[in-house]
Formats: sequence, C-alpha cells, structure tokens
Amino acid sequence: MSTTTQVKIHNFSAGPCILPQEVLRKAAESMIDYDGTGLSIIEMSHRSKPFEAVMAKAQSLVKELLGAPDNYQVVFLGGGASLGFHIVPLNYMKPGGKAAYANTGEWAGRAVKESKLVGETVVVASSEDKNFNYIPKGFDIPADADYFHFTSNNTIFGTQFKQFPKSAVPLICDMSSDIFSRPVNVADFALIYGGAQKNMGPAGATVYLMDPDQLGKTGRKLSPVLDLKNHASKDSMYNTPPVYAVYVSMLTMQWMKDQGGVVEMERRNAAKSKLLYDTIDRLPMFKGTTAIEDRSVMNPTFVMTDAAMEAAFDAQWKAAGVSGIRGHRSVGGYRASMYNALPIESVQVLVDVMEDFAKKNG
Amino acid sequence: MSTTTQVKIHNFSAGPCILPQEVLRKAAESMIDYDGTGLSIIEMSHRSKPFEAVMAKAQSLVKELLGAPDNYQVVFLGGGASLGFHIVPLNYMKPGGKAAYANTGEWAGRAVKESKLVGETVVVASSEDKNFNYIPKGFDIPADADYFHFTSNNTIFGTQFKQFPKSAVPLICDMSSDIFSRPVNVADFALIYGGAQKNMGPAGATVYLMDPDQLGKTGRKLSPVLDLKNHASKDSMYNTPPVYAVYVSMLTMQWMKDQGGVVEMERRNAAKSKLLYDTIDRLPMFKGTTAIEDRSVMNPTFVMTDAAMEAAFDAQWKAAGVSGIRGHRSVGGYRASMYNALPIESVQVLVDVMEDFAKKNG
Repeated sequence: MSTTTQVKIHNFSAGPCILPQEVLRKAAESMIDYDGTGLSIIEMSHRSKPFEAVMAKAQSLVKELLGAPDNYQVVFLGGGASLGFHIVPLNYMKPGGKAAYANTGEWAGRAVKESKLVGETVVVASSEDKNFNYIPKGFDIPADADYFHFTSNNTIFGTQFKQFPKSAVPLICDMSSDIFSRPVNVADFALIYGGAQKNMGPAGATVYLMDPDQLGKTGRKLSPVLDLKNHASKDSMYNTPPVYAVYVSMLTMQWMKDQGGVVEMERRNAAKSKLLYDTIDRLPMFKGTTAIEDRSVMNPTFVMTDAAMEAAFDAQWKAAGVSGIRGHRSVGGYRASMYNALPIESVQVLVDVMEDFAKKNG
Repeated sequence: MSTTTQVKIHNFSAGPCILPQEVLRKAAESMIDYDGTGLSIIEMSHRSKPFEAVMAKAQSLVKELLGAPDNYQVVFLGGGASLGFHIVPLNYMKPGGKAAYANTGEWAGRAVKESKLVGETVVVASSEDKNFNYIPKGFDIPADADYFHFTSNNTIFGTQFKQFPKSAVPLICDMSSDIFSRPVNVADFALIYGGAQKNMGPAGATVYLMDPDQLGKTGRKLSPVLDLKNHASKDSMYNTPPVYAVYVSMLTMQWMKDQGGVVEMERRNAAKSKLLYDTIDRLPMFKGTTAIEDRSVMNPTFVMTDAAMEAAFDAQWKAAGVSGIRGHRSVGGYRASMYNALPIESVQVLVDVMEDFAKKNG
C-alpha cells in the first residue's frame, strides 16, 4: 500500500466525489481479505452468507438513516439514476395516464425526456427561463397525474428544494445529489431514488427506497429487469447486484450513522455552506449564480465578477491543494461541491484562498 | 491492512469469482491513492483525465485481447447481462421483425423471455428436454430473423459451445461466463456482451463489444439509456459509468495481456479442465452431468454416484480449503468453476481430495 503521497487534497469534486477516509481504508482492506474470510469481498458469490449480510445491512441503513416507514423496501440496481429516469415512468405511469414533472436542470430535464418516451408528460414547473438559477414555487400539480417527479438538488446549477412540494398524487424524487444530507419525511414519497456517487458511496449502484403499496399498479407488462416490484420481491438479488458499490455504500452509511446520522450531516453541511456563501457575498470579486433562497448546500456555484482574473485565481487554489471547483460547462465559473464527507477544514482552505486573492487583487 | 489470515482458500466460486491477487492488491492501493494523485480512484470525477485514461485503456484492452476489428466499439454499462437481455432486442429487433434464440440454460432462457416482451422470438434450438445437459447442434437459423442470440457458456449447467453457430443473420452472443477464456473471431459477431464478474472483473460492469455498422438500424425510438448507439457515440460516458468496476476490469485485462493473452488463458484452462474431468471420469464415485463433447472448460459440473456420501465428501474438501463447489440448486451435486485467475494448483488440491476420498470410501 502506497503511503508516500503527502499532498493534502481538498476534494470538491461534483461526483464521483470525496468519501470518508475511514471508509476508503476499510474498503481497501476488504479488497484483499473481507472480514477474515481469506477472500476479497469482490470474489465471493453475491449469494454467500457474508455478502447477503452486507446487502441486508445496506438496506436497513438506508431506512434507518432516513427514518423510513417499516414497510418501505430498498433495492440497489446498476445503471445509474439515468436508468432510473426510464424505470420511473415504466413503473408508475399507467398506459394512457400522465406524469407531472418539475424541470430544474440537466438531470431533471433528462428525466422529463425519458418520461415523454413512455407517455404523456406535463412539465408543471420549470426554471429553464433563467438557466435554472432558481427553484420554481407555487405551482400546481394536476390531481389526475399518476405521479409528480422532481429533483431535490441540482448539481450543475447549484439550486436545491428547501421545502418539498405538497402533492396529492404520489411523490417521486431523484435525490442523487443530496440524499442523506438532511432529514426527509420518507412517508411523503412513493419513491426516493439516487445514484450512489455523491453522499452514499461510489459510482455503480443506484438506491431505490419504495413504498411497496405504490408498486405494480399500472397494469403495464414490464421487463423483469426494469420492474421495481420484481427487484423488491427478490430482495435486490434478481440478478447479480453491483457488489462492491453496495458494500462501500454500506460502509459510508455506517460512517454517517456513527457520526450522528443525517441530523449531524445537516448541521455540518449548513456550517460549511454558510462559510462559503458568506465569503462569496462579502467579497465583491465573487458572485453567486443562483437565487439566494434556493442555494444548494451541496453544490455552491459562483463566478468572478471579472472573468479575466480566473486564471490567476485558478493558480492560487490549485497551489493550495483545492481540487475540482471548476464549474460545469453549462454554467461556467466555479462549483465547490461540499458533500457529507468533505471536512469544513477544506472549505476553510478555499475561503482563505478567496480572501487572500481578493486582498491582493481586489 | 490485515495480513493475519493464513488460510489458503481455493476459490471455485461461480461468480462473482476469483480474480488475480496482483489485481486485488493494486485495486486496494488505488482505493487509497490512485497513481500518486492523492485521491482514491472512486472519489474523482469520471470526466477527470486519470479516469478518462482508465476508460480508454479498458476499451482498448477488450479489443486487443480479443483481436477485434479496428472499427468495433466498446462500452461498459451497469445493470448486468440481465439488462443486456432487454437491451439486445430493443437495439437489434425491428418493429414487426423477429429474433432467433438458442435456449441452453437459465440465462439463455431469461434472454428469450426478455426478447418475447419486445417482439416475435423463435427458439430455434433448445436443450431443455434434458435439463440443459448438452448443446444443440445442426439447427437452422431463419434467414429472415433480425439476429441470432446464444449463450456461449452455461454457468449453471456446465455446458459450452465449442464451435460457434454459423449464421447468415447478425450473430449476438452473451459471453458473460467465458469471455477472454479463448480466442474468438470477433468479426463474426454483431455484438458480444457479458457481465464482468467472471473472467473480466468485479460485478457491476457489463461490457458490450459492437460492430458499429449493425447499430441503430431498427428504426425504433429508444430510451437513450438503453440505446447502444448513444452509449457508443458518447464513448461510454453518456452517464456516470461504474467507475471502480471498469477500473478493476482494466487491471484484470492488463493481467491477462501480461500473462500471454487469451491464447495462454485457453492453454491454462484446457490443462485445468482436463485435470478435473479426467479425475471425474476415472473415479466411479463421481460422474459428470453433461454430454462429454459439450463440457464447459469454465464450470465443470458433477455428482456423486452415491448421494449419501456427499456430507462426508463436503467435510473433506472444506477442510482442504476448497470453497464454492456446491452445485446450483437446479442441478445439484457439484460445480467447480475454474475461471482464468484460478491456478491449476487449486484444481490439484480438489483432485487430490477426490482421489483420497475415493481411496478411503470407494
């Protein structure tokens, strides 16, 4: 095991992203010898007792961390949330029915597109008019929609639903980029799903947390591999699950639990985002890109008021070990993603660079 | 890193399965620090330079190891070969067209079921009449089929196509359980696909090796996440790929290349399977379950002629450190999976146990 690297990296990557060091160390150990079995976690059958225990633990931690109702079911599938965009309308939209969506960014838009390929899809709220720099509010959800779908946090644009929409129809949420960052009332949702590669673990697993009473109600004949009811009935073992991604997700969820759960994550994330947003707002050289009340706690986005200074600023944060804050090409500027595992010390390093740069160049 | 485990395990697991020790060690290192970057391979963006290089290397190794034509394309998706069963008819069967399948076991049968959900599906060859203990031969493939699909190796039943069917229509093969075990003439295939978790790497990635000229010809409007042409055009980065599974697959393919490629894998696999099958045939206490000419080099299956002796036999191989040879519930008896990374020394240990047990109890 290499231990020679001494550079301290402050990892603000938008995802795949920083995970707790303890998790990485344990995950590395288990690549060689899982729990004294003499086998790597990745070279044992997914139907072996040790892995079945990993799966059961991962499923129960999802529910425990989020305080889900007892009867809710959890499966981990491959294919990313992008496959989820396709799975959602297939599993929840009746033939001849319709679905309602909020379009708040790139991933929300992809979900809309997938739904349109399945059936009638109404965009009941959109912030596309202002390049997705705010969260639409006060919109109506048609009472005859089969479900309402929204994206709780918009990674690219840096906005986040602070309050979840009230809905008379089943509520479905892609929480890929802020799941486990704060408490949610799971009972309000028919389905919460998300790619693992932000707060939950590595890329390669997608979690589906489901109200079983809302499954299998469309009358559609589904491919078994896209049928959430089938996966739930097989306890996430209909086919070989993404073993290692589930395992590392389990370790990460255990870490969150040991740290104090999602209430503690919320407290830390609030402190981190306040530190950065306060700095953005205090220094005239920087400017947030989104409506203040909709600012994402996970992905603060900002620009420099004088774009000509970016190169000099880039050199300074890179020298300080800051990594991954360049903004997505569709927004430009900067995006400092601050997922659960990012320590506030890393945010302080970035803030110090910003202060110092402003002092010298302001 | 735990180094206290001294038990030498002989890992005959059917999959997820044994991988080379060198690969596991390197993969564990990269969990902590990938290539001196100071970041874990799983906490960097899939669009970072280091991971883009991993993806490119993995893609080129698939083609290099199998000697694929230059223009063939490679993508790695999540969801397992089971998602592939659904993707295949969507991408290759025209609306109103039909597909031809060989049904040679559990996974072949699942592929048939998925195809039937998409359109007309003809099973042109089946060994279901004898519980899949042989490979059908001399069957006709309809000239008006959109494609012919078969499963090169049947993990559960222990049979394997020794010669690939000749087909006037595009040939599609699920090679999940014997890819990279022997040379194949890739140019004969429109598509070769397979779950990684046998010879290629860990569970969580599925490789698709495609003739680009056979893509996008059905006129079907596909979900982008199920559209192979879309994934190929995005170079396997349409959405976040299963980063770590691709990385470990890349390491495993590099290991195969360093060992002498698939020609050397074929030589080793032939020696291992000869050693075991010769023992099965020599000892009256054991009996192979399949037609001799169709015996799988990857998954030899056998039973004891006196099932009452199984418990005593089980105790003996377990004591010798042999793991994972209990047969699938649909066949019973034993299945000693011998993938590329299994050393012949492990087969010798199993054979020694069989000989010793026969001597004492025969």
